[in-house]
Amino acid sequence: MPLAAIIPAPHSPVEIREVSVPDLERDSALLDVELSEVCGTDVHVQAGRLAGVPYPLIPGHVSVGRLSRIRGEFFDVEGRAFREGDWVTFLDVHRTCNACWYCLVAKATTRCPRRKVYGITYGLDDGPSGGWAQQIYLKPGTRCIGLEVEPERFMAGGCALPTALHAVERGEVALADTVLVLGSGPVGINAIILALMRGALRVLCIGAPEHRLDAALQAGACAVLNIESKNEEERLEWILQQTNGRGADVCLEATGAPVAVVQAMRFTRDAGRVVIVGQYTDHGPLSAEAAFNPHLDLNKKHLHVRGCWGSDFSHFYRGTQIISDSSRSAPWSRLQANLSRYDLAHANEALADVASGRVLKALIEPSV
Amino acid sequence: MPLAAIIPAPHSPVEIREVSVPDLERDSALLDVELSEVCGTDVHVQAGRLAGVPYPLIPGHVSVGRLSRIRGEFFDVEGRAFREGDWVTFLDVHRTCNACWYCLVAKATTRCPRRKVYGITYGLDDGPSGGWAQQIYLKPGTRCIGLEVEPERFMAGGCALPTALHAVERGEVALADTVLVLGSGPVGINAIILALMRGALRVLCIGAPEHRLDAALQAGACAVLNIESKNEEERLEWILQQTNGRGADVCLEATGAPVAVVQAMRFTRDAGRVVIVGQYTDHGPLSAEAAFNPHLDLNKKHLHVRGCWGSDFSHFYRGTQIISDSSRSAPWSRLQANLSRYDLAHANEALADVASGRVLKALIEPSV
Amino acid sequence: MPLAAIIPAPHSPVEIREVSVPDLERDSALLDVELSEVCGTDVHVQAGRLAGVPYPLIPGHVSVGRLSRIRGEFFDVEGRAFREGDWVTFLDVHRTCNACWYCLVAKATTRCPRRKVYGITYGLDDGPSGGWAQQIYLKPGTRCIGLEVEPERFMAGGCALPTALHAVERGEVALADTVLVLGSGPVGINAIILALMRGALRVLCIGAPEHRLDAALQAGACAVLNIESKNEEERLEWILQQTNGRGADVCLEATGAPVAVVQAMRFTRDAGRVVIVGQYTDHGPLSAEAAFNPHLDLNKKHLHVRGCWGSDFSHFYRGTQIISDSSRSAPWSRLQANLSRYDLAHANEALADVASGRVLKALIEPSV
Amino acid sequence: MPLAAIIPAPHSPVEIREVSVPDLERDSALLDVELSEVCGTDVHVQAGRLAGVPYPLIPGHVSVGRLSRIRGEFFDVEGRAFREGDWVTFLDVHRTCNACWYCLVAKATTRCPRRKVYGITYGLDDGPSGGWAQQIYLKPGTRCIGLEVEPERFMAGGCALPTALHAVERGEVALADTVLVLGSGPVGINAIILALMRGALRVLCIGAPEHRLDAALQAGACAVLNIESKNEEERLEWILQQTNGRGADVCLEATGAPVAVVQAMRFTRDAGRVVIVGQYTDHGPLSAEAAFNPHLDLNKKHLHVRGCWGSDFSHFYRGTQIISDSSRSAPWSRLQANLSRYDLAHANEALADVASGRVLKALIEPSV
Repeated sequence: MPLAAIIPAPHSPVEIREVSVPDLERDSALLDVELSEVCGTDVHVQAGRLAGVPYPLIPGHVSVGRLSRIRGEFFDVEGRAFREGDWVTFLDVHRTCNACWYCLVAKATTRCPRRKVYGITYGLDDGPSGGWAQQIYLKPGTRCIGLEVEPERFMAGGCALPTALHAVERGEVALADTVLVLGSGPVGINAIILALMRGALRVLCIGAPEHRLDAALQAGACAVLNIESKNEEERLEWILQQTNGRGADVCLEATGAPVAVVQAMRFTRDAGRVVIVGQYTDHGPLSAEAAFNPHLDLNKKHLHVRGCWGSDFSHFYRGTQIISDSSRSAPWSRLQANLSRYDLAHANEALADVASGRVLKALIEPSV
Repeated sequence: MPLAAIIPAPHSPVEIREVSVPDLERDSALLDVELSEVCGTDVHVQAGRLAGVPYPLIPGHVSVGRLSRIRGEFFDVEGRAFREGDWVTFLDVHRTCNACWYCLVAKATTRCPRRKVYGITYGLDDGPSGGWAQQIYLKPGTRCIGLEVEPERFMAGGCALPTALHAVERGEVALADTVLVLGSGPVGINAIILALMRGALRVLCIGAPEHRLDAALQAGACAVLNIESKNEEERLEWILQQTNGRGADVCLEATGAPVAVVQAMRFTRDAGRVVIVGQYTDHGPLSAEAAFNPHLDLNKKHLHVRGCWGSDFSHFYRGTQIISDSSRSAPWSRLQANLSRYDLAHANEALADVASGRVLKALIEPSV
Repeated sequence: MPLAAIIPAPHSPVEIREVSVPDLERDSALLDVELSEVCGTDVHVQAGRLAGVPYPLIPGHVSVGRLSRIRGEFFDVEGRAFREGDWVTFLDVHRTCNACWYCLVAKATTRCPRRKVYGITYGLDDGPSGGWAQQIYLKPGTRCIGLEVEPERFMAGGCALPTALHAVERGEVALADTVLVLGSGPVGINAIILALMRGALRVLCIGAPEHRLDAALQAGACAVLNIESKNEEERLEWILQQTNGRGADVCLEATGAPVAVVQAMRFTRDAGRVVIVGQYTDHGPLSAEAAFNPHLDLNKKHLHVRGCWGSDFSHFYRGTQIISDSSRSAPWSRLQANLSRYDLAHANEALADVASGRVLKALIEPSV
Repeated sequence: MPLAAIIPAPHSPVEIREVSVPDLERDSALLDVELSEVCGTDVHVQAGRLAGVPYPLIPGHVSVGRLSRIRGEFFDVEGRAFREGDWVTFLDVHRTCNACWYCLVAKATTRCPRRKVYGITYGLDDGPSGGWAQQIYLKPGTRCIGLEVEPERFMAGGCALPTALHAVERGEVALADTVLVLGSGPVGINAIILALMRGALRVLCIGAPEHRLDAALQAGACAVLNIESKNEEERLEWILQQTNGRGADVCLEATGAPVAVVQAMRFTRDAGRVVIVGQYTDHGPLSAEAAFNPHLDLNKKHLHVRGCWGSDFSHFYRGTQIISDSSRSAPWSRLQANLSRYDLAHANEALADVASGRVLKALIEPSV
């Protein structure tokens, strides 16, 4: 029986347990996990700040590994059958139903009510379904992609890559745009890389702490500002100085702090685009001091503000194609130096290091 | 010298004065005003709530009348020269420069810094430049459209027509959508008409008072709710009941109340579109009770929120085409019963009636 | 065993046979057909002009009827279970896989290689799977919609309704646009109705014969031209006269004649949109006389030309919502006078009448 | 009086003449030309293949130089006044009127009927208005951009840069797309650079001769095919092999050969996008052998085909920003080795070298 690191309940520390693997259904598979990760969502899950989490659960939504067993058939989107032994990753989102109003009429599959996410909304009762385990049970209909890059390079993007790609796509970054990224966590760093790849001439980043801003510069940001050193007014002034007094063409908010939503709107030029991708957890309503002014911040600015929830297979696929291509993967190679590895026994430490921002990205190696 | 109704300064009552007409520049004209209007913006101008207003000024931004004098040449967009005696209306927006970054790079002409609006940002020093006067001086470059409909029919749309058309266009209403209009003033009523014209299957409206909701029903709304009779929670429940529990596909906010911005987001289905066109005046930041929650109201909803500022010639032209066409004008014909006419001497009364919502739409007849 | 009208092979006349109903799989159903239809595609199928048709087959792709038997569960997109006895229609497209590159990456489900269509690419070997039969076997995953309108009203739209809706959507018809519809068959007539519903100010139609142009006028076209009475040059002149010399804003080509594709481009104004929805069958390459000029007809015109293949559930759902709503269904009510009904025994006559254009729309009543 | 190279009439060789400089109107300027260029359009102008050219004329539409005289004021889009001595380039398009239906309603300024282009539709009668002259008279309203890069680097992009940028924008290249560029002239080469800059994962190019394909590889193409070595069928096979049998996501046609338009459609995957930017001259209708099949090549493919005419200030501005930025200019630096310089006296030779494809890009140095 494989070992797994489990969050038993909100606020409880991670525990190591042996978990049983169910009989494989037809067209399902078992993955021997090589690497998984700890992301901000896992911190929120442990803190009980996410709705719909079926505790106890095994965290770890984006992972890579080897298919150790396949029952029936498992295909990629090209119709090629996987074989046992293949290295793969898989879309953490499962069971968008292709049958409901959101899937078929609104074509908004990330809002499908039946959507499930490995490591977040699948719990221990669903079998080993998170990456902080030696094995994951890949249910029928799981979308795998064959891995053509070393696992660690892929995990330098991890779950932040499709999330950021979705945000950049939704921001409709145009050639020669100036893009402002708020937040210097993994999503922010990936957003910097991808905004540049999509043609932004300059990407600015406001974040913290310093080592993450260094990563932002490595990722290609032309200028960074430490949020801890400047108040909102000074930050606005900094942006305006770099944009002929107008603000950024596109702002990608990836912070986790509600107050950043209003700042994103203020730091963007009139008629620009704001993508909100940093509010994945409920931190409650905006405080009075955030002071959103609908006239000045939205209507008169003629602004586009776009919430960006989850990602779908296209984002995961495109991201995987990019990070696997030697002509494009250099920014992630540079990030590999910022990865910290933990075995299952140190999962609590990994969570703490991510929560504090001490590390940029924490990887879990279940088999060590 | 023509008579005009003038707002001398913020909070001052309207005064009637004789105003002098400047010598006509080359390619300019004089318009004998038949009808102008009082809109919510005029109330804000009189209350000193709008930035950039050069008091004293003659209000009245959308007007119709006859060209009594033309110096040089005046063309419509088809290249046809106007003649003295022609009935016309004109785009109130003047001098978007076609030379600045906003006009040429962002293609966001409603945010051109040199943009001027007759009756709002042109003052008495610019000559008679508002519709509450017997004559308006049409400067070179003013965009006129020949009127092919009786003046009163046209003014049943008035300035609300291009504003609402812009909002409906920006809301990308799709065939068979359910649209929610917040607000039952002239912009809201025109938004109902135009959302239906663009293919909405059902339009719901929340507003007040009762006589405006009657106008909303006349305009084609399939159901209305009096905001004064229900609290936010009850309104949400009302919307959900009519949308299979999801919310509206598109919400057009046209209220003037900051709190409505957050409600617009809540009343809209996940991945839907919200257009904010009702925040033309600065009422200060959102109060604490409005309590915008970036996670629940925006990011998780995967919402599009779009500020919508002003309108450009295309909106004015398309709106004029529609209201002038007998196959499309019926909803505005029905609204004509809701128009109240005032001469210049009763402009203060007109302002008060608009401010209180006692009338749906007030017209000014300067020549009576 | 139900009776069915079958096309045994290309160029063979329709035959009436008894067909056997397979054992119902889990979550499948049987539909007692009330009405099906004969569309242009059926004429092409009988003439052997369509690739991928598995003869022998039962034609009839859009149909209505009553669920006489359900095995397991059958849901609509709202998650409501159907019951035996319910009146329904169903999307003729089945088995877009939600697993391939076209479904998941390109999001172009009408090009999914596994896509199957009842009555066209399902043959007799797949069970009774076309509407020219007393019963249809609805396989698992078939998307049904409960019918809230009398069957004949619904069939006045028929398969042309979602096809035309898709074309109008793809044409991005804007408020006050002038739309030109080429072709006055069922798709053309539905395109007229829907273009007006989406806000076109005027819809022009070029087609034949006269009784179909009468239907076009009933549907709301403001002017029609009989293609048989005018050559291409005269038609162009006619269009230009009605559009200030520019051409239509949007042209929806729904003719079936290859030469119309180039004419559609010429009849459209510079920077306008052309939707090609009338080339569902291979009539071979354009003849030399059609003489497409890439410089004049496409590049210099700065034109958008969009092929439009099939339709998906959203088009079918939106169309069904519209035609079922009393506030919107009037144009189709008027068309009901143009429907011709045939029993199974007269299916060959129905095909001939559709092929010749003698009738606008032929319905099949299998149970008479 | 400055010297200029003049095309006196169609089919006539270029002549050198002294030209007189008119009195400067208010807010106009004189530019001392440093570098101009010879592009394919100039070859067509000399061959009399372009409509609307007012012979005699001075060719050369995109140029750089120094403002030697300014009368009145000359501003950039930021509102900064130029001074005599400033290095600038300028948008060759002049006088899009901002007053006609195409400018104001269709918002398609490249189709404005009053649009004029320096060096193409301005002739000698309009003063020295082409770059093959020691001075150009910049009329009021000419849009200049201050040059922040050495002239030769800028001219490595030249007029092909905004043209290609417009095409890439119109092709809506998405992150990780495979793009196919047809043609390896300056527009094709710039399209390769910009498609990669906008996020294409791989760019393929079909063109000729070999030295231009070398330039295509330098520009970043991952594979090239010499059109002279393969017939259409073999080219299609080559494309399919590199795209999992589907064709390119986006095809940018920049060839000048009408037959390429149909090939562009065939080489593109279903539901992909084709941009036609290579048909700037009338080569007559497609020959019978090109054999465009509306069913197979367009409708069934569900293709987007977009003509792309000219470019506007936004394309020119964004292109100039990019090529002037050291972080983005490397591909053009590499192209500088492919530039050939000619003085005015050798303009005929330059035209011949461009016509034959012997050189990739010919620059004119009028002051040498």
